[in-house]
Amino acid sequence: MSIKLDPWGSQIITDYSKLFEEFGIEKFSEIIDKIPNPHLLMRRGVVFGHRDFHSILARITSNEKFAVMTGFMPSGRIHFGHKMVIDQLVWYQKKNAEIFIAIADAEAYAIRRLSREEVIRIGVEEYIASMLALGLENKRLHIYFQTNYHPAYYRLIQLFSRKTTLSEFKALYGSDISPGKIVSVLSQMADILHPQLDIFGGYKYVVVPVGSDQDPHIRFTRDIADRFRKELGLERPASTYHRFMTGLDGGKMSSSRPMSAIFLTDSPEKAKEKIWKALTGGRGSIEEQKKLGGEPEKCTVFEFFAYHLIKDDKELMDIYSRCKNGDLLCGDCKKMAMELLERWLKDFQKRREKNMELAYDITNVPEF
Amino acid sequence: MSIKLDPWGSQIITDYSKLFEEFGIEKFSEIIDKIPNPHLLMRRGVVFGHRDFHSILARITSNEKFAVMTGFMPSGRIHFGHKMVIDQLVWYQKKNAEIFIAIADAEAYAIRRLSREEVIRIGVEEYIASMLALGLENKRLHIYFQTNYHPAYYRLIQLFSRKTTLSEFKALYGSDISPGKIVSVLSQMADILHPQLDIFGGYKYVVVPVGSDQDPHIRFTRDIADRFRKELGLERPASTYHRFMTGLDGGKMSSSRPMSAIFLTDSPEKAKEKIWKALTGGRGSIEEQKKLGGEPEKCTVFEFFAYHLIKDDKELMDIYSRCKNGDLLCGDCKKMAMELLERWLKDFQKRREKNMELAYDITNVPEF
Repeated sequence: MSIKLDPWGSQIITDYSKLFEEFGIEKFSEIIDKIPNPHLLMRRGVVFGHRDFHSILARITSNEKFAVMTGFMPSGRIHFGHKMVIDQLVWYQKKNAEIFIAIADAEAYAIRRLSREEVIRIGVEEYIASMLALGLENKRLHIYFQTNYHPAYYRLIQLFSRKTTLSEFKALYGSDISPGKIVSVLSQMADILHPQLDIFGGYKYVVVPVGSDQDPHIRFTRDIADRFRKELGLERPASTYHRFMTGLDGGKMSSSRPMSAIFLTDSPEKAKEKIWKALTGGRGSIEEQKKLGGEPEKCTVFEFFAYHLIKDDKELMDIYSRCKNGDLLCGDCKKMAMELLERWLKDFQKRREKNMELAYDITNVPEF
Repeated sequence: MSIKLDPWGSQIITDYSKLFEEFGIEKFSEIIDKIPNPHLLMRRGVVFGHRDFHSILARITSNEKFAVMTGFMPSGRIHFGHKMVIDQLVWYQKKNAEIFIAIADAEAYAIRRLSREEVIRIGVEEYIASMLALGLENKRLHIYFQTNYHPAYYRLIQLFSRKTTLSEFKALYGSDISPGKIVSVLSQMADILHPQLDIFGGYKYVVVPVGSDQDPHIRFTRDIADRFRKELGLERPASTYHRFMTGLDGGKMSSSRPMSAIFLTDSPEKAKEKIWKALTGGRGSIEEQKKLGGEPEKCTVFEFFAYHLIKDDKELMDIYSRCKNGDLLCGDCKKMAMELLERWLKDFQKRREKNMELAYDITNVPEF
């Protein structure tokens, strides 16, 4: 028996149901059984919704070509929230997907006011090296800085701009929309849709794994694909939606609040300290907890187990049950998490160091 | 003695004076005497205004490096209005300027709904081959399609977008500003400013010869240069402003009204027909004209002489005087123009054919 986390149970975003009802995101649970050897995050309901994943599934099962696209802004440190997406990329790559990864450096450079050198260092050392260490292989892999790519990519930005209106941007991003935001959104559309062009391999089936807050982007991008179906032969991209990891303090996980997230490059000591201080589903007293049991569905440490640290469903179920019935108390549980995390981080960080040179080799570092 | 056409005398745009008073464009007449061997269009007051041309003049006289930048949309046929800009480029090239020419194909493609093949054909065959035939040499010459250029160029578009506001765009281009127009304006800014980047040669002194209606673009671009002075080392571009040629029918010269313009690829017969039908400064009757004299400053045929067909100032002055005092009547004058034009077109069109292959060779025709 496998555990299904309740996607509506998140303490941060409580309106997942709206996504199904109002916006037409389909439930991932309805196709999960057809997916061969689904990823842990799929199996456990963390990936809870999708658009058009049927078409991707058909490619997977028939072993036909398809692509996965994602992007990140190289402005901060990589944490376990990012790892959720990368883990999915690794899984897709094993299903023979072509992987496209955009490093949104123009955005990082302009919004965060980081120096060019810093943006490049973060992009390559923090993100790309980590991705390789997480198991992404250097095959069928396309990593690019947004500021240093092929002209055909930029041409899409130019063309897309002509078939959009200011009203659309305002409806999606608010009336304080700026030229910078417009160009950024158009760039993201080019990121998602460019693998379909012949010059990039002609991948007509592309899936974008995102957090549910990214659905407005996805919807807009699907509309754009429709508008350029005839002219450029674009098809709508598919998408999957995953829950966010709760921050360790119960708030939103964010690079800007270091105690809310464990960074993949945190020292094991620092990481253990964060776990020790993390918000759990424990009760007010040991007495009470023994009597009522804990609430693992509200526990950020249990989330760590479920999303990252424990691969075996039975083992996870066992922790869940022992917490629920008051046998496993938070102190012991945290110690277990700290031990697992320490081992994982040490292994990972060694692999990351080993992949540093390769990370630079396979990335089109801008020289201007 | 040279003829100075009155720049306020245009029948189309009557508010040139506003440009000096309200917007701070400086009078070209005030520096013309310092320019070694000035171009015919400068000498005759067709180029009537400038911003910061002093700095360009200093480069010309000291033989230091500088650049000239222009662009055109490859959506229609090239006519004598375009030739005015190209003639200036040829002059600048002889002054050792580096020449940058943008082919705004994304714009042509999207706005005019032309096919990719048609846009490329027009860009190369109609414009580039004509430029070479007009005397532009294949040295210190950079011609590029906007959709197929270096990533560093696109990076400027991304960066510029972040330091502009929607209000600025609305103030300059009206409240019906669109994402397409925004990207187009940002691209034009990148066109004008990119020669300053090291990777494109580091030309810190750039002059943009434009029609006076383009000054809002120039002002906005100069502001952007200020905003990126520290970050990218950009300097304000210089500019010159020229009168528009009056359409042969007295209206605006435009590719979309074929009888208003003579195209460089018009057959001599067609061109002669257009001259024959052109609006002149003649009087109601021969009697009257002999008595009062003609009005060459209102004559589109005289404009053709002054802007294009007659290089010698004395010869032009002679026509002007003979018209003024009623000796030269419109019929004879037009025949003279037709003869000059026929000779010019035949020569030009031969040169254009000869340059067709070179035009393709030196242009980065998009292959995607």
